[in-house]
Amino acid sequence: MAPNGELDLIRRLRQRIGAAGPRTLLGVGDDAAVIEPGGELMLLTADMFVEDVHFRRSFAPMRDIGAKCMTANVSDIAAMGGFPTRAVVSLGVPGDYANDDIDELYDGLLEVLDAHRGEIVGGDVVGSPGGLVVSIALLGAADRERMVPRSGAVEGDVLLVTGHVGASEAGLLTLESGLPESEDVAFVRARHLRPSPRVAEAQAIIDVATPHAMIDVSDGLSSDLMHIADESGVGIALDQSAVPIAPETVRVAEALGIDVAELARGSGEEFEIVVAIPGSELERTAEHVLAVTGTKVTCIGEVAPGSEGCFLKKPGGGRVELARTGYEHLKDDGGR
Amino acid sequence: MAPNGELDLIRRLRQRIGAAGPRTLLGVGDDAAVIEPGGELMLLTADMFVEDVHFRRSFAPMRDIGAKCMTANVSDIAAMGGFPTRAVVSLGVPGDYANDDIDELYDGLLEVLDAHRGEIVGGDVVGSPGGLVVSIALLGAADRERMVPRSGAVEGDVLLVTGHVGASEAGLLTLESGLPESEDVAFVRARHLRPSPRVAEAQAIIDVATPHAMIDVSDGLSSDLMHIADESGVGIALDQSAVPIAPETVRVAEALGIDVAELARGSGEEFEIVVAIPGSELERTAEHVLAVTGTKVTCIGEVAPGSEGCFLKKPGGGRVELARTGYEHLKDDGGR
Repeated sequence: MAPNGELDLIRRLRQRIGAAGPRTLLGVGDDAAVIEPGGELMLLTADMFVEDVHFRRSFAPMRDIGAKCMTANVSDIAAMGGFPTRAVVSLGVPGDYANDDIDELYDGLLEVLDAHRGEIVGGDVVGSPGGLVVSIALLGAADRERMVPRSGAVEGDVLLVTGHVGASEAGLLTLESGLPESEDVAFVRARHLRPSPRVAEAQAIIDVATPHAMIDVSDGLSSDLMHIADESGVGIALDQSAVPIAPETVRVAEALGIDVAELARGSGEEFEIVVAIPGSELERTAEHVLAVTGTKVTCIGEVAPGSEGCFLKKPGGGRVELARTGYEHLKDDGGR
Repeated sequence: MAPNGELDLIRRLRQRIGAAGPRTLLGVGDDAAVIEPGGELMLLTADMFVEDVHFRRSFAPMRDIGAKCMTANVSDIAAMGGFPTRAVVSLGVPGDYANDDIDELYDGLLEVLDAHRGEIVGGDVVGSPGGLVVSIALLGAADRERMVPRSGAVEGDVLLVTGHVGASEAGLLTLESGLPESEDVAFVRARHLRPSPRVAEAQAIIDVATPHAMIDVSDGLSSDLMHIADESGVGIALDQSAVPIAPETVRVAEALGIDVAELARGSGEEFEIVVAIPGSELERTAEHVLAVTGTKVTCIGEVAPGSEGCFLKKPGGGRVELARTGYEHLKDDGGR
């Protein structure tokens, strides 16, 4: 890397990115990209990923790291009811990274974006005295009547989640603890290292339902439900026994000796979609999403009056206050 | 910082950023910002700034660091003929930073953006085991007929630069060498620590001229001229004796014992505008920019045939190949 310099790396990346697509008048190579917006609403999200905070080179190939960084951004756009369109990617690159490492990282970034017809139109490459830093800003587009914020949930809505939760954190724990390989371990690790954004599932929900609030599970199910509660000014009743957990995750949690229900509520980076819709739309929504995407959708609770706050309905009856679990980066508990 | 956590910091920053402006349907606080684009072209640029690579806490208050990071992005939008509109700012924050530090950084970010009626609509806050990382993606808008790429310079164009160059690097060198305070030293340090984006100057140029290519001086005058040459497929003749250098910069270079002409060609982060326009428009352009903005514009050379490459016309006559000076981050020469 070092002998070739920044300009050479930028040239290489520019070749990788390729020619600008339609409605991108200028892509990489000028002071700014030039985009011709359509009549849709424009979405804009950003996420930063730091080596040894969000990922470890020893746990994953660079391609997986790139794919996951882009997935986190695409997932945010999906959770608004949109499609990703154009990204700028800024990299802080340590001196010991080879060109091949960055190429593989780009393989992953582009794989996820290509799958959704998005394109990279610029960014920055700088040196980093610390670890690798990957900072993405992603534009998306949404039809005006299909955009779904976090803030519209109302009392009486049911809460649905796509797929299952808990496997991402379980996968990380198997990597950290060095649990020996098995089919279960491979399953949860794949979920941790190569999650998928639920763009198609979010669209399928919007096709048949009138979603009032939507969010992706990035901080953890409990925390993300509480984001909906905060933004909508409502309470949340989460039914513990309804939270969908894969059997592989249950078995791995047993092997690790940890509480699988707690794991499922706190596990971040799942990138499933949580949505609040009228109860009357529950059945047809679940049927449609399964038919169109193959992804199961589960009702995990309902929206409660704001005065009730956020609580967890325990299997045996009774309720406890919902804990804001999941990972907060700057907390004093020794971030990973 | 640490005991309060990421969510608390995000709450604080959200208060700082304030309510979303017109045409921003949703700002900070959802999965993505929602923007209603107008009929103009949309510009998108990104830059990343890493502590001890791009800035040092010992050299500058946090407010200056924030202002300069945003200035670099606004300058890229200015160099396309546009105005900044909306930014997402992602921060990688080390554990030893206090809330006040980030507040002051935001003071600087917002000061520059407010001056140009832009707004912050989102971003990310994560922990950083290394130094502070500030990653900005900035959207801008430009009228279709006023957007200026790097790629349109043609043989016979004259090359203009706003203001003066060399002072930014001189300022950095005085900080690194610990040169004692003086009016000259204060002048070049202010230029290094608090440069201004040339939005008004770029617009004034476009008002009266037909700019063929435009770029901001971020890598260094020589390198940025060569970017125009590369993208336009032309040569560049830079007249060494015409390059505008402030008298303060000349005196500081003398005190430091360095070649001021070389300094002026290599100094990055000047954020002046370089533009290629037809020679016939030179006089009225310089007059108009000075009248409207108070900034002097200087003709520093002309666009040559591509076959001639990029060269420097020496004061005594004769020419030498133009060196691609300025800073490349990943070069083997031990990045600063």
